[in-house]
Amino acid sequence: MQQQIAVVTLAARDLSASRHFYVDGFGWTPAFENDEIVFYQMNGLVLATWLACALEADMERPTGPGPAGFALAHNVGSAAEVASAMARLLAAGGRLLRPADAPPQGGLRGYVADPDDHAWEIAWNPAWPIDAQGHVTFAA
Amino acid sequence: MQQQIAVVTLAARDLSASRHFYVDGFGWTPAFENDEIVFYQMNGLVLATWLACALEADMERPTGPGPAGFALAHNVGSAAEVASAMARLLAAGGRLLRPADAPPQGGLRGYVADPDDHAWEIAWNPAWPIDAQGHVTFAA
Repeated sequence: MQQQIAVVTLAARDLSASRHFYVDGFGWTPAFENDEIVFYQMNGLVLATWLACALEADMERPTGPGPAGFALAHNVGSAAEVASAMARLLAAGGRLLRPADAPPQGGLRGYVADPDDHAWEIAWNPAWPIDAQGHVTFAA
Repeated sequence: MQQQIAVVTLAARDLSASRHFYVDGFGWTPAFENDEIVFYQMNGLVLATWLACALEADMERPTGPGPAGFALAHNVGSAAEVASAMARLLAAGGRLLRPADAPPQGGLRGYVADPDDHAWEIAWNPAWPIDAQGHVTFAA
């Protein structure tokens, strides 16, 4: 099968708070939105923020509260952009999980939780190329 | 900021069980792996499966057990491929969450949880184009 993730869907308890974080914090533009879901066109995939009750009904299982075992990363092009991006996210309803510092492999990263406690790593990873369309390539 | 997700990182309690699901179920090839992490090059982003304790240390917060409020989707090119993909995932340690049926917007989808209970939607969505590199485009 194609090595492909088509959609990342995040449960949102309050869609307007979630929208504020993604639109005003990240500065992203929705591709579509209504009272239940907001879609964003990403780098080769789609991000959806969907009311938790609707996602639960679609998956046919409830979702638990509390920190989940996953993280999303947004990579930026320089060390300086890590701090400015984190500041924008915190000003738009994000919550600081880890201030930016250097991971063992080099670069710089910190973590901010979105209003639904989904973890975002904001990272500068000089080893991994990002093209103009935002496509990110693994490099050891 | 670029509308970009650089990495999706999933916590794994047993990395070999997780690897079996992704390598033998999805048929994906790791770009890099060691005893702690497996990276897969995806469609413009990277998927990482990382030992839960290591992800927790990096995020500086524990991760809870139980179903989390997010889902990943893998889209296929035809209705028939949904069943065959789900069968492969179930044979490689996945757990059925929802048998495939038609969502309100059309197409076909079901849900399978990976060995760490992360939800994967396997979907045929005829409205959303997928190119040869696996890049998926939102279409209303």
